[in-house]
Amino acid sequence: MNVTVDGRTRHYRTVSFDARRNRVALIDQRLLPHRFKVISTPDFKATALAIHDMIVRGAGAIGATAAYGLAQGARAFKRGDLAAFEAHVERVFETLKSARPTAVDPVNAMMEVRRRMSAGGSVVERQELALEAAEAFANEDVEHCRQIGEHGAPLVRNGMKILTHCNAGWLAFVDIGSATAPIYAAQEKGKCFHVFCDETRPRCQGATLTAWELAQQGIPHEVIADNAAGHFFQRGEINMVIVGSDRTLGRTGEVANKIGTYTKAVLAHRHRVPFYVAIPLSTIDWNLKSGADIPIEERDEAEVLGAWGAEARGARRYVRVANPGSHARNPGFDVTPAELITGIITPAGIFKPQELWDNRQRLGFGGR
Amino acid sequence: MNVTVDGRTRHYRTVSFDARRNRVALIDQRLLPHRFKVISTPDFKATALAIHDMIVRGAGAIGATAAYGLAQGARAFKRGDLAAFEAHVERVFETLKSARPTAVDPVNAMMEVRRRMSAGGSVVERQELALEAAEAFANEDVEHCRQIGEHGAPLVRNGMKILTHCNAGWLAFVDIGSATAPIYAAQEKGKCFHVFCDETRPRCQGATLTAWELAQQGIPHEVIADNAAGHFFQRGEINMVIVGSDRTLGRTGEVANKIGTYTKAVLAHRHRVPFYVAIPLSTIDWNLKSGADIPIEERDEAEVLGAWGAEARGARRYVRVANPGSHARNPGFDVTPAELITGIITPAGIFKPQELWDNRQRLGFGGR
Repeated sequence: MNVTVDGRTRHYRTVSFDARRNRVALIDQRLLPHRFKVISTPDFKATALAIHDMIVRGAGAIGATAAYGLAQGARAFKRGDLAAFEAHVERVFETLKSARPTAVDPVNAMMEVRRRMSAGGSVVERQELALEAAEAFANEDVEHCRQIGEHGAPLVRNGMKILTHCNAGWLAFVDIGSATAPIYAAQEKGKCFHVFCDETRPRCQGATLTAWELAQQGIPHEVIADNAAGHFFQRGEINMVIVGSDRTLGRTGEVANKIGTYTKAVLAHRHRVPFYVAIPLSTIDWNLKSGADIPIEERDEAEVLGAWGAEARGARRYVRVANPGSHARNPGFDVTPAELITGIITPAGIFKPQELWDNRQRLGFGGR
Repeated sequence: MNVTVDGRTRHYRTVSFDARRNRVALIDQRLLPHRFKVISTPDFKATALAIHDMIVRGAGAIGATAAYGLAQGARAFKRGDLAAFEAHVERVFETLKSARPTAVDPVNAMMEVRRRMSAGGSVVERQELALEAAEAFANEDVEHCRQIGEHGAPLVRNGMKILTHCNAGWLAFVDIGSATAPIYAAQEKGKCFHVFCDETRPRCQGATLTAWELAQQGIPHEVIADNAAGHFFQRGEINMVIVGSDRTLGRTGEVANKIGTYTKAVLAHRHRVPFYVAIPLSTIDWNLKSGADIPIEERDEAEVLGAWGAEARGARRYVRVANPGSHARNPGFDVTPAELITGIITPAGIFKPQELWDNRQRLGFGGR
């Protein structure tokens, strides 16, 4: 998407590759929204570190970063022996995988790159195929988000007020994003609307990343405390909700997403406001039989007990908000049942959550 | 309630009066939870400033502060003339009233003090009556909170997990508090239970004041992001909700309280968890016919766009969290309909919200 820095507007992807210098370029998301900076990693170890250090986050984005990182590592191999090359690629794979051990996207992305590399007969051929495969993976991510936007844009009507939660925007993917895709596509079609960004405590991805994204694209928006949406629902000021998903169960239509998503779905249901979830196919879990089986990670209590922000001079700073000595619970995700979800917007079209299983062939079941 | 500072435990009221020195003593709530300090105001102008500067907040607490401030001002009058005394008292009244012009409690409290003063025949008699009336007002506030605790304590069962929102604790009153009264009373009766404190963005009174209060009384508690309660409801980890109220409509049973209260009531209703509101009688509004007529104050957007906390060295600091340039909406309150409320705990007993009007005589309608 477009980013304007010092009055100059340029198009960026969250993740891209500089083939000449063999570097992965990443928007440093730890600095946003207070500073925009693109870093480029000199080697695959630096790329793994960028994943580990949360310079890049979001399923699609870290998948593409790992794919590029594998190609970067493969292309840095200079001796000629195919066996030594494969051993080297294995080390690169493991290094990148261990940067975020619980994430499935980097592994899936790198397996796809390795599958396509194996068609090459020589080290050089495999190196070329690795780059092609990584580029194809990133481009496919963009194309899927574009398709989500195409299917979702007709849901956005002129004058609407849309509530979002957390950030499933282009920063979480290679470009465009999932929950934001219908929003950006509707803007392209000339529609006028307003977005409420839930601040999304404790990490505040809504107030920081989503608000930054929308501001860059010139989309009218306001940040609200997570507490405030209920009031706006009551006053009829929210006409649609769109969120992303970390994992959607193909068998039940249940959606695991950032903590607080379930609450917004309950409110939307009470006020008969449509609640949509936008997802790439890679986040559908076809195995799990119940949302109750989804492990809910409890994160560091310091996130709840304080806040990260910028002080007046712009330096990043953590302040302790809560009573010193008090502790916190910090579940990172919650599970929204299918009955509260109006539709799931995918690259293959919009489905009711209960229809995913019957459409599993179209939705990539058994593929990949 | 008890406060432990440097290993020494003492009983404090939020507001009290030093008759010998003619000073109002106030816990400085702006410094909490990071520092505990009691200030004492040398004259009524300083008392008015303390109300204005939010050193003291909460309906009961600012009511008692204004009552004491009026007595303080009256007692500082040294000439003998009754007419000049009354003109002076009028100036004191207006000064204290203008410290928080939208609040009704200071005005009600001071009118009661003036009513009782008028029985005195001399300046000295009126000065004595002013102090008596202010003390009586403060003691009545404490007694009402104690009665709320007596009625509410049986609702708290051993092993329960109780959710609270914002701070309707003893810091908002002279002592004991409203929403916290059943909790403290249950603790006194030896019951064991756990409290979840909603952090209550944007001002975080739950994470700061309520957590501080509970820690001081040794009550097991954890702070949670406002987003997290839905998940804990789903997992059956919340067995009761108790909140306070800024205004309860006697005719409809609707409850205006801190933003986010409505959302918790919707969640409790969905999960069939009892939702109680604890209130002193002074917050019942017998006039308004609909919650839609309650004006909802929109507060400074800076509250939503950032956070106040303490840095490592303990200094208070504001950090900007949200995207620079983005704006926020910040409604301070929301209105919960009667259908979502299990019971309203008052000093006169527990009532269903729809029963308030039929019990209006017992609940002080037309009194005061």
